[in-house]
Amino acid sequence: MSHADRILMGPGPGNPYPQVIKAFGRPVLGHLDPDFIALLDETNDRLREVFRTTNPLTFPVSATGSAGMEATIVNVLGPGDTVVIGVNGVFGERMCDVASRCGATVVRVDAEWGWALDPQDLLDAHPDPKVIAVVHAETSTGVRNDIAPIGAGKGDALLLVDCVTSLAGIPLEIDAWGVDLAYSGTQKCLGVPPGLSPVTVSAAAIERFVEKSPSWYLDLQMIAEYVTSGGARAYHHTAPISMIYALHAGLGVVLEEGLENVQARHQACGDKLQAGLVDRGFELFAQEGHRLPELTSVMVPIDRLPEGSDEAGVRTRLLTEYGIEIGGGLGPVAGKVWRIGCMGHTARIRNVTLLLAALDEILD
Amino acid sequence: MSHADRILMGPGPGNPYPQVIKAFGRPVLGHLDPDFIALLDETNDRLREVFRTTNPLTFPVSATGSAGMEATIVNVLGPGDTVVIGVNGVFGERMCDVASRCGATVVRVDAEWGWALDPQDLLDAHPDPKVIAVVHAETSTGVRNDIAPIGAGKGDALLLVDCVTSLAGIPLEIDAWGVDLAYSGTQKCLGVPPGLSPVTVSAAAIERFVEKSPSWYLDLQMIAEYVTSGGARAYHHTAPISMIYALHAGLGVVLEEGLENVQARHQACGDKLQAGLVDRGFELFAQEGHRLPELTSVMVPIDRLPEGSDEAGVRTRLLTEYGIEIGGGLGPVAGKVWRIGCMGHTARIRNVTLLLAALDEILD
Repeated sequence: MSHADRILMGPGPGNPYPQVIKAFGRPVLGHLDPDFIALLDETNDRLREVFRTTNPLTFPVSATGSAGMEATIVNVLGPGDTVVIGVNGVFGERMCDVASRCGATVVRVDAEWGWALDPQDLLDAHPDPKVIAVVHAETSTGVRNDIAPIGAGKGDALLLVDCVTSLAGIPLEIDAWGVDLAYSGTQKCLGVPPGLSPVTVSAAAIERFVEKSPSWYLDLQMIAEYVTSGGARAYHHTAPISMIYALHAGLGVVLEEGLENVQARHQACGDKLQAGLVDRGFELFAQEGHRLPELTSVMVPIDRLPEGSDEAGVRTRLLTEYGIEIGGGLGPVAGKVWRIGCMGHTARIRNVTLLLAALDEILD
Repeated sequence: MSHADRILMGPGPGNPYPQVIKAFGRPVLGHLDPDFIALLDETNDRLREVFRTTNPLTFPVSATGSAGMEATIVNVLGPGDTVVIGVNGVFGERMCDVASRCGATVVRVDAEWGWALDPQDLLDAHPDPKVIAVVHAETSTGVRNDIAPIGAGKGDALLLVDCVTSLAGIPLEIDAWGVDLAYSGTQKCLGVPPGLSPVTVSAAAIERFVEKSPSWYLDLQMIAEYVTSGGARAYHHTAPISMIYALHAGLGVVLEEGLENVQARHQACGDKLQAGLVDRGFELFAQEGHRLPELTSVMVPIDRLPEGSDEAGVRTRLLTEYGIEIGGGLGPVAGKVWRIGCMGHTARIRNVTLLLAALDEILD
C-alpha cells in the first residue's frame, strides 16, 4: 500500500513538526519508570505554559480530544446538575450529547452556524447553573467565541471551554479569563499527531467534582494520583508513552519558537489565506471579527466548479493531484462550505501560496 | 534529560518491534483520507486474524486497554442488567468497578490471587446473567483462566473476556470459544507501544447493546459507522493516526512470523525463565498448570536480598545498573511478588539469559 505524504490543510490533523516525528523514536520506557515520570512532569509543565495556567491538574488525557470533552464534563456534572451550553456548531452540539448522557440538565443557548455566541446570552440563560460550557474555536464553522466576558460574569458557575482548535493558535488565557476546565487536542495548533487530549482543571472545579465519575477510564480523581507531581504516582492505566514523547516534543517546538510567535504565525497564514480568497471573489462563511486564523471556512464557489464536478470532486483533485487535504462541511453546511486549516507545522506561508495557486488551476 | 533504553521485562509495556517504531515515521494522513481508511481496514483485517474471529466489528479503540474494558462493558450493561464477573486479581476487580458505575448488578465470583477461577463457578453463579466476564490472562498474578468451558456452557449469556495480556501470547480463539466481546492492549504481546485497545464484538452482542451508552467517546454504535468497512465511514472522533500505523506494523510482524510461531516464542521464553527461577530456588506464585509464559509471577526471595536492601531496591538496581525493568506486585501481593514479562519483542531467549544472570549477580 503506497502512502504519499500530504499537506494537511483540513480541520485537523495538521502536519506534525519534524521534531515530533523524531520523538517517536525515543526508546519506550515503562509508565512507572522514574525517567518517564520526569518526562511526564516536564510535559505537564509545558502544557501549563501554553494553557497559561498554574493548575496542578494539567495533563494529557490518554485518548483524543473528544475524550477530553467527556473527561471534563463527566467529572463535574451528574443527575441534578444544570449546565448551560453554547451551541453554534458540531462541538457545542456534542457537548450537549455528552452532558445529557451523564444525567445533567442541559440548557442550550443557540447561535446560527457561522455566527459567534453572545456571552451575555450564556450568562442570562439560567440563574444558577453549575457549569457554563462553550467552544472557544468552533472547528465546524471557523468561528471564535469570546470567553473572557463569560469568565468575568459567571459568578459561582464553573466555566468549561473546548480549546481543541484554539490552544497555541490564538490567544488563550485559562487563569486570567477564569476558565475552570478546558480540554484540547494534539493534532491542531500543537503540531502533534492525534491521540491525546491535554486538559487543565482548576482547584475550584476539583472541589465540585461529582462523588464518582460514571467513567472509570476518565475518572480525574483517580488519574490525578498518577499524573500530578504531588500524587502517589500510583498506577491507574498504562500511559501512552510514545504519544507523550510526541506531545512533549511538540510543546518544546512551540515554546522554543515562543507561544506569541507561534500564534502570530497562525495569524499571518490565516490573514493571507482569507485575503487571497476574498481577492478571488470567494465569500467567507464565518462572522467578521470572529474568524479564526487557523481554520478558515469559505462558501463553496458553486459557479466556478469545473464542468461536471461537485465540491467533493475539487477536494479529491486537490488530494490526488496536489497531495493537499482540505475539509468539507459538516451537518447543515455539508456541501456548502470548505474548511481550510493552517495549523501546527502546516501554518507556513508557502502552504497558503500553494493552495491558492492550486485552486486557481482547478477552478474556472 | 537523558533517556537510556530499557529491556522492558515488567508486566507491560514490553519492547516494541523495531518495525513498529519505524512505522511512526509514516507521513500523517487525515482520518477521512481514502489511503488512511484502507490502512485502517487492513489493520482490522489483521486484528481479526490474531483474535481468530470473523466479527465485522473488530478495531482498535482510540485509548489504552482499560478503555477497551470500559467500551465493551458500557455498551452491553446498564441498570437492570446482571453481570457475573470472575475476580482473581486487579483486572477482574477493575471490571466490577466499571460495571457498577454503569448501574449493572454485579455478581462476583472470587478465587484466591495466584489461583485460577473454576469455570463452573462462573456458570453456576447466577441463573440468567446478561453477561459473564472474565480475564483470560491476569496481569496482576500471572494466572491463565480457562475460557473455552465458559463459552461452551454460557447459554444465552454474552461472554466478555479481557485479552490484554493474552492476545498473540497464548492460544486464544474468539469464535471457536464463543467469546462475544473482547478487548486487548497494544503494549503486551503485540509488541507495540501502549495507546490503543483492540476490541472485537460479535453480532449477538451488537443485538443486545444498551439503547444508548453512557459514554459518547466509547459508543460502539456510533464508532461502528466509522470503523467498519460496511459503515458510512462517518466522522465520529479523530482517529489516532500514528498509533494505528504502529499497530498495523506490529500486527504485520506477528502475522509474518506466524501467530503460532509468535506464541511458541513466548512459551519458550516463559519456560526457560520459570525453569531458571525454580533451579535457583525461587518459588513461583501462580498455580501450576495455569502459569502464563508471557508473564511470570514469582515470590520475592526475602532471604536472598542483599544486606540492607528491600525488594524495591533490587528492582531499582536492575533498572539503573542493567537497564532492565521488572514489575513489583499490586494490591495484596505488593512487596511479596515480582512480575517478569517476556512480551512482544522482549520475548527473546537472550533477555531471559540476561535477567537470570543479573539476578545471580545482585542476589546473595
